[in-house]
This record gives sequence, C-alpha cells and structure tokens, in this order.
Amino acid sequence: MRFSILLTFVLIYSSSFSQNNEDSLVVRSFYDEALSNGEAYENLRFLCKNIGARLSGSDASYKAIYWGEHLMRSYGFDNVFLQEVQVPVWKRGFGEQLFIDEIGVVPVLALGGSVATGDSLKAEIIEVRSLDEARALDPEFANDKIIFFNEPMDQKLINTFRAYGACAEQRYAGASIAGRLGARAALVRSLATSFDRFPHTGSMGYEKGIPKVPGAAIGTADAYKLSQLLKEKSVSASLQLNCKTSKDTLAYNVIAEIKGSEYPDKIILVGGHLDSWDVGEGAHDDGAGVVQSLEVIRLFQKLGIKPKNTIRCVWFINEENGNMGGKTYAKISQEKGWDHIAAIESDRGGFSPRGFDFDGTNQYQLEQFQSWKTLLEPYGLHQFQRGYSGVDIRPLRNEKIALFGLSPDSQRYFKYHHSEADVFEAVDRRELELGAASMAALVYLIDKYGFPTPITLD
Amino acid sequence: MRFSILLTFVLIYSSSFSQNNEDSLVVRSFYDEALSNGEAYENLRFLCKNIGARLSGSDASYKAIYWGEHLMRSYGFDNVFLQEVQVPVWKRGFGEQLFIDEIGVVPVLALGGSVATGDSLKAEIIEVRSLDEARALDPEFANDKIIFFNEPMDQKLINTFRAYGACAEQRYAGASIAGRLGARAALVRSLATSFDRFPHTGSMGYEKGIPKVPGAAIGTADAYKLSQLLKEKSVSASLQLNCKTSKDTLAYNVIAEIKGSEYPDKIILVGGHLDSWDVGEGAHDDGAGVVQSLEVIRLFQKLGIKPKNTIRCVWFINEENGNMGGKTYAKISQEKGWDHIAAIESDRGGFSPRGFDFDGTNQYQLEQFQSWKTLLEPYGLHQFQRGYSGVDIRPLRNEKIALFGLSPDSQRYFKYHHSEADVFEAVDRRELELGAASMAALVYLIDKYGFPTPITLD
Repeated sequence: MRFSILLTFVLIYSSSFSQNNEDSLVVRSFYDEALSNGEAYENLRFLCKNIGARLSGSDASYKAIYWGEHLMRSYGFDNVFLQEVQVPVWKRGFGEQLFIDEIGVVPVLALGGSVATGDSLKAEIIEVRSLDEARALDPEFANDKIIFFNEPMDQKLINTFRAYGACAEQRYAGASIAGRLGARAALVRSLATSFDRFPHTGSMGYEKGIPKVPGAAIGTADAYKLSQLLKEKSVSASLQLNCKTSKDTLAYNVIAEIKGSEYPDKIILVGGHLDSWDVGEGAHDDGAGVVQSLEVIRLFQKLGIKPKNTIRCVWFINEENGNMGGKTYAKISQEKGWDHIAAIESDRGGFSPRGFDFDGTNQYQLEQFQSWKTLLEPYGLHQFQRGYSGVDIRPLRNEKIALFGLSPDSQRYFKYHHSEADVFEAVDRRELELGAASMAALVYLIDKYGFPTPITLD
Repeated sequence: MRFSILLTFVLIYSSSFSQNNEDSLVVRSFYDEALSNGEAYENLRFLCKNIGARLSGSDASYKAIYWGEHLMRSYGFDNVFLQEVQVPVWKRGFGEQLFIDEIGVVPVLALGGSVATGDSLKAEIIEVRSLDEARALDPEFANDKIIFFNEPMDQKLINTFRAYGACAEQRYAGASIAGRLGARAALVRSLATSFDRFPHTGSMGYEKGIPKVPGAAIGTADAYKLSQLLKEKSVSASLQLNCKTSKDTLAYNVIAEIKGSEYPDKIILVGGHLDSWDVGEGAHDDGAGVVQSLEVIRLFQKLGIKPKNTIRCVWFINEENGNMGGKTYAKISQEKGWDHIAAIESDRGGFSPRGFDFDGTNQYQLEQFQSWKTLLEPYGLHQFQRGYSGVDIRPLRNEKIALFGLSPDSQRYFKYHHSEADVFEAVDRRELELGAASMAALVYLIDKYGFPTPITLD
C-alpha cells in the first residue's frame, strides 16, 4: 500500500515535471522565433508605410483589408476569409483650421463624428476644467460661445489607461454638453500625457434631440497657452471644420485560422483592430495588435505546433468609431453557434509586455491563468490580474468564454494615440515581437490545458 | 496573560500597519511629485541639447561639469562640491571614413582608444564570427588584412545586457587580436539589437607588447551587407581614422548632498555618470542616470522628507573610457573613511523601471531589500534579485555596503547605446521620472530601516 502510494506520487511528480519542462521549451521557442525571425515588425512597416492611416470606409481601409487577406493567404493558413460588416463613414475635409489672434494658427483635429462648422465660426472661448463645471454653466453665459474643455489627464496614475478613462468623457460628450447650452462648438484638450502641439482625435457622439455643434481637439501645449491667455483677457477663435458623415458602407473583418486537430469547432481567438484614425499611421493603435495576432498563428505554423483547438486570428474593422466589427462578429458567432474557449486582444500598443488582464466571470479560469505565471515570468510578464480585455472582443463576453487583454507597459501610449505621432518609428521591434510571443504562449497554454468547467452549486 | 498577548499582538499589528501605511504614503508622494512636477526630463533636455556629447576631457565635458555644479547649487542642497579626477583624453579626428567599392561610403566610428590609421589604409577584409575563430586564424592568412569581427548580439535573450556582455569582448579585444595576427585593422560589427546603419562606438584596449592597429565599428546593416558580399568575392576597404590619445588631464566628479539629521556621517549614494561617448547626446547613456540621481535628492528636498543619513548624489566622470571617476571616488572614500550604507546606480537607460539588482555579499541585505517588494510593486517594480549594480559604484564593493543597480526595461537600450541615435528624443518623460521616483523610494526605505548587520558565525 505504502509502496503504491509512493509510486503514484513519483509517477504524478515526474509526469508533471516533464510536462512543465515541455511547456517551458515550447514557450521558449515562441520567444526565440519571434525575437530572431519575427515578421510582425516588417508586416507593421508595410501596413504603416505603404497603407498608412485607415479609417473605416476610407480607400486605405480597403487596401488594408485586401492586403491583409492576401498576406494571410500567402502564409498558407488552413482557412482565410472576410466577414461582412456594415460600418459608418465619416470623413475629415480639407481646410480644417483653428485661428486664435493671440496665438496664430493652432493645430486642430475635428473629433470623429463631428459635424462641420459650415462657413468658419468665430466666437469667444470660455474654459471649463471638468464636465461637472460645464454642466453647471449658465446657458445664458455659454450661449454662442466656444466651450473649451480643459481637463488634463492625471499624470500621477501609473496605469495611463486609468487616467485616460477618467477624462475621455469630455471628448465623447463635450459637444453634446455644448449643444445643450446653446454654445457653438466644443474645443477639447487632447487626451495625452505629453506636452506638445499634437492634437489627438477620437470618437465623439451626439445625444439625441440636442443641436449638433462641432467638436475638435487641440494639443496639450496649446491648451495650456490658451488657458493662460484666458486668465488675462477674453479670447476669441475662428474654427473651420469640413468633416462629413456619409451613409454606412460595407467593410470586412479579416480572418485566418489554423484548424484544431482534435476539436476543430472550438475556437481560441487572437485579435486586434485593422482600422485606425485618419491621422498618423495607426502604428500602436492598432497596427501593433493586428500584426501581433497574425504573428501568433504564424509562430504556431512555423514551429509546427499543432493546436488541439482552432486558433483564429481576427482583424476587426471599425473599432474606432462604432465597433461594428466586434459587434458583428459576436452576432454572427451567436447565430452560427461558434464555440469560443477564449479570446485575447492586443489593443494597447506594441510596447514591452507586462502581462495580461483577465476579463471573465469564472474564478476557476482566473486561477488557472494565474497558475501559468511562473512559466511566463522569465519573459518579463508579471501582471496576471482581473481587468479589461478589449473593445473588439468584449461583445463575446459571457459566463463561458475567458477574455484577456495583453497588457504592455503603458507609459508612452498616450503620446501617440490618435495623433500624427502614431507612426511606425514609434514602435520598437523587440517590444512588438515580445508581445506577440507572449500572446502565443498564452494561446498554447489555453489550448493544451483548457479551463475547468465552472461548478454550478445547486 | 491571554489578554496581554492579545494586546501585544494588536499593538505590534497596528504599529506595523501604520508604519506600512506611512511608507505607502511617502512612496506614493515620490511618484506623484516626479510624474506631476518632475524636473529630470527638463534637466536632461538641457544637458542633451545645450551641451550634448561629452567625452571626458572634451570642452563639452567641462561645460557639463560646471553646469551640473551650478544646477546643484541652484537647488540649495546642503553641500555641493567637485572631486578631482585624472582622466584619459582621447579624441576622434576630422575625416573618419570607410569606403568599400561595392557599397560606397560606409558610416564608421573609431572605437574609443583606437590609434589612427595614419594615411588611409587599404586592405582586403576577412570575416570571423567569433573571437575563437579569430584567434585560430593562420597569421600568414591574416597578415596585412582587415579582420572583420561579425558576431551578432543574441536576439533571443530577453535581457539585452546579457547579449551585450556575451559579445562585447570583440569590440574591446578585436584590435589586439588583429595586431597579434599581423593584420592591419579590426572592423567590428556594432553591438546593437537594431538593424540599421548607425555605428556604435565604445571602449577598446590594447594588450601590452602587441602592435597597435586601429579598431572601428560599422552598423549592423552594413555588417550584414559586407558579410553577404564576402560570400561571393574578395572585398577590400579603405579606412581612415584620425583619432588621437593625449596625456591625462584633470576633470571632476560632481557631488551634492542632503545632510543626515541623525547620522550625517553615514552615506546613501545615488549616482550615474556625466561623461558620454562623443556621438549623439548621451541621453540614455547616461544623461538619464545623472538627472535621475539629482531628482532623487530634489524629491526629498521638495517633499520636506528629512533623511536620517546623508544622501549623496554623485555624477561620476569617465565611466566610458577608464572609470577613473568611480575608481577615484572609491579611493578617496577609503582614505577619508567615508561610511557608505548603500549605493544605487542608474546606468541602463531612462526606460520604464522594472526593479533593482542587488549586488552585495550579505544575505540579510538581500532579504531586507526583497521584503520591500510589496510596497513597490504597484509602481511596476517586480525584479528584486541579485545582479550587477553599476560600473561607477562597483569599486566601492565590500562586505558591508549594499549596492544596487536600477533595472529598467532593456529592450530598446542597444538601439541607442554609444551611437548618434542616443538623443533626448529617445527618452520618454514618464519612463525617466518613474525611474527617479523608484530610486527615491528605495533610498527612503534604506534610510528609514537600514540593513541588519551580518552575523558572523564563529
């Protein structure tokens, strides 16, 4: 009896040892291949330099879609297909300008979804430092003015996404608040951690039943200067925005898969979004995420690792101004009964990876995920916590699927985000490839071990 | 009895709780101040843009020394002084050039300490991929040739400093090996992780009794091209280097301190090196380290935190080509009986900090250091391990002092290191300031708790 217990123990121990050892070697091989012969960086160069900014519905977005499909086919994956998505179409017009007598021409970007000014609009500027302050304005005072929303990102937060989240509403809702007050426009301080003249655009919306007034962003340095000026005197600005919303059009999510050898109908999804704002090159947001997702399945293929489940790389369209790619994917998934075990999104820039955020409802999944920390720590991953996954995959969320967001170092992201500064040169090859290898390692572990089924206690 | 045990427990617990709470608040305040009102970044801008590259003994190095002294005095620290250091003087001459018929002009940098070519030197190139291969060359074959040392950095290592360490010897010793073989020069592949045309310089030395031949670096892309060419045909190069070593001269370490309120004779040192190579702006190497060290004492002063021990900020001179700043400091420290509790160096770039390396001999110090991990983890610090401290403070090493090296993310460092690419723009403000705050937090904990004295077991 005693002998048999001992033997069992030895067998379990040695099997677990060799399993861990195999896992270490496979994980190592992902990083070795990505750092030595990775293709994510050169794919990103092509996307940024030969296609560039690619807002949904733009000519460049279709170039990106067809390039992506062609590239995926060239790798010879098991299955490559386009998924139809109806997307909104908004276009910045030529001749956008902001002029303030005391400063001169101020770099400006209409916010995505804004209406145009018609002829140029000239009005006095009044400043608010928060949405509450804006909402409390006397409409008589605000009437016919330009409301300048000047709430800065909180520099003290280590996770810059928290700082972004805390004041993103001024960009999204500023124009509606201005419209409700009878103001003529909303001018928004860019959501950026840097101090410079780059305006950072991003989505905004209009509340129903409220007059639509234009919304535009200026750089943090100009916001500072304007605020200083307003302490001394009244300041007026001339604003011209020529943007336009057209009717929805057909675009596509771009999808490639490696079929599972045992459970081809079970899916592990990796993804990012192919569309970007219409300025810069969409390098960190989210060129990085799409080339990393593709790199994950390339790594499996190149290293000859046959997954048990299907691994599907999805390049979502229209994350930036509507999330129709993510919503449509989830809808079709439900209609077709696609069975997703997990989904991992990379949409926080191609920076040095520091871990993953788990965005699910199942405690067993979280614990299983955290048990892999030891295997991944040698690669600089130390964050294995609850958090947000990603805009594109979030519509898939239910009590069954395990959602994850790749969590890279966040310090530099909001220098580039949604601005002309988000270009290929801002991405580091090694940092980008490390993120791809990290995603591949997590996919490998999920594929191999799966997740325990939650026990329903009834 | 039982009551008293309980009470004791409660008292210990609450005292430890409030202590932890105080530590959390102080640590938080360092980060808050550094991220909101930090001055490291603007100090670095001045050093890079108004002074620039500053090799020991150059005019710019003296500008940097006097600017540093002036800046430290302007902050009103308790004590600011210069410490005399004899430094070697090596100067790159005008007209450095490498020309290869099949490529054209190839960007080149003499290695620091190299002799000149005299008139331009023209010879056939032979390639080796390792030092062993070079040492095994037949002198008859190598005679009168240029030996091209083409060992690449190992991209697979996550810690790029390990990859650097593994092939730095080809730069340092290449010319001696070439000289021993009767070759005419050593041409070295840059120690860089990037693929581009930037040559990266760095120190080299000559073995005694061996003919001195010139040593120079070319970029990784040119090394690749040259290697491809050499597979097809024999290739010759013309090399002109006009560098020169002059006699040693007087320079200075620049030092500022905040005097300890209880133990003014006990010192916690924070430092980096003020000199840089003579190309680029010495931004990451090691402008970052000097402005961070200064920021540490500025943070204490600004926040009104009075240390028990003296905190001394040292800007070392001549780390790059002789380490005379570090050696002289240690010598004088011994002569004067300076009592250092700890020394922390920042010399691995101003990137997002990930922890510290402990470089001491005392297990108790290591354990004490590791007990602070919980306090610092919320700031992204997760590496609390044994490792290397820094070239400048290493001469202080003994069984008493606790040495530490700030360990930032290492992925990008070797794109910039010792090249024209190491400029201010390559440094991120938040990443830089986070490093400074991390150093301040460690200094605070060391100052408050000290280290247990090692128990000698005899």
